[in-house]
Amino acid sequence: MRVAYLGPPGTFSEEAVGRCDLARGAERVACPTIPDAYEAVARGEVDAALLPIENSLEGSVNATLDLLVHRPGLRIRREVLLPIEQQLMAAPGTRLEDVTKVLSHPQPLGQCATFLREKLRGVPLEATQSTADAARLVAERQGGAAAIGPRAAAERYGLQVIAESIQDGDVNTTRFVLVAREDEAPTGRDKTSIAFTLDRDRPGGLYDVMGEFAKRQINLARIESRPVKQALGHYVFFIDFEGHRADPAGAEAIMGVLQRVNALHLLGSYPRV
Amino acid sequence: MRVAYLGPPGTFSEEAVGRCDLARGAERVACPTIPDAYEAVARGEVDAALLPIENSLEGSVNATLDLLVHRPGLRIRREVLLPIEQQLMAAPGTRLEDVTKVLSHPQPLGQCATFLREKLRGVPLEATQSTADAARLVAERQGGAAAIGPRAAAERYGLQVIAESIQDGDVNTTRFVLVAREDEAPTGRDKTSIAFTLDRDRPGGLYDVMGEFAKRQINLARIESRPVKQALGHYVFFIDFEGHRADPAGAEAIMGVLQRVNALHLLGSYPRV
Repeated sequence: MRVAYLGPPGTFSEEAVGRCDLARGAERVACPTIPDAYEAVARGEVDAALLPIENSLEGSVNATLDLLVHRPGLRIRREVLLPIEQQLMAAPGTRLEDVTKVLSHPQPLGQCATFLREKLRGVPLEATQSTADAARLVAERQGGAAAIGPRAAAERYGLQVIAESIQDGDVNTTRFVLVAREDEAPTGRDKTSIAFTLDRDRPGGLYDVMGEFAKRQINLARIESRPVKQALGHYVFFIDFEGHRADPAGAEAIMGVLQRVNALHLLGSYPRV
Repeated sequence: MRVAYLGPPGTFSEEAVGRCDLARGAERVACPTIPDAYEAVARGEVDAALLPIENSLEGSVNATLDLLVHRPGLRIRREVLLPIEQQLMAAPGTRLEDVTKVLSHPQPLGQCATFLREKLRGVPLEATQSTADAARLVAERQGGAAAIGPRAAAERYGLQVIAESIQDGDVNTTRFVLVAREDEAPTGRDKTSIAFTLDRDRPGGLYDVMGEFAKRQINLARIESRPVKQALGHYVFFIDFEGHRADPAGAEAIMGVLQRVNALHLLGSYPRV
């Protein structure tokens, strides 16, 4: 088995691969961006991709949600929860007051917004493709560049952690999904993800969709909206519900939803963490 | 009247000020970040701040949603819709193949993700505080730096547009809100924004909240969720509904919601665009 992830080595995504029962022993293929990892599965070059989908501080990972809807056909087969601690790292000997630039992926920059505003006010931020990419660039450059990312990235690129655990809250968790060409058979303790759009002329549509789950006592684990990229006020909704698409109640609810929406994407059923 | 906005001059936010009936003739105060503009209202240094809250390609502006909930007390008094065209701009004579770095606010970088991936693959991105800030930095620097932002920023900082209308879709609109110490009296054609958290142990809670509007035939214009920054799976929900908080049906629905949620924030009633 070959598993793509957001590389280079040393990212939180690589750490998540080690926490996924299906992916742990697989050959790891580092990809420069989330779309690259997703497309590698779609093209059959790898068997699966482990992608971040949601963080407890910063919310949804838009790139992953957009791919699941706009490049449909792949299925979620696993979810993985990874506790996240962001470290500020720089060349050994660098002090916080020496830092003249901070590099990281936009998600960690958002997770550390309070630290950046209070301790490094006015210091320019540079958006990189991944946390390990930021660490690699900092290791290459001279001067006061610093990166935000996992301790593993500091170790791999010979940097020193100069401020520890700098994210906005004590609890910071990222949820990853393993995306493959097929989802998972029922285990008895499952979750199913769907996405759909509604007629704009039926404002009660979302309420009616949620009713399909409520009337069958199916718990919703998550509801999220993203613009469909055509007009303001037009959204694609993401719902995670407890149960498998092949459970009698789950299958009935999906059939009910199908009659109330414009387009339904079945994103997959997988064991619940 | 004094109105704060995300500066420096030349941003889309400044353009939106000119489209807002209340803000148009006011003294304009450029602020370096969205939190700075918000806090200036909270401290009474300005009368209002015009802040981006939602874009049709990139979705919610997290900084604004988070401030409305985590620094409560201000009210939405107006909404403004601004059509957005992103331009790639650089020093006169620069060609697309000369570009070695792209600067902009993370939102426009996200709105132009396809263009950046296809036309400027591998070119490093630098996150700036605003689009006009990016243009200003590009004008200062030597070499192949380019900025993404409005045409007004190119004109103000002496840059040339080298690629036009580079956002992912043809239709790109940003919704701004004018945040002040009080909201607006009923006009007969209003919208109301609320935010709330639910008990985590009551998964049907959101459905019940939506029922308070459905049973009174009140249309929902928008529903959005953001993490509460404490744990994965715990969200604050944002609902915009049609009507004023002082309308009989609106007031009844709010009282109904209040009995079903943990904490309710009334974000304000204002004329619907």
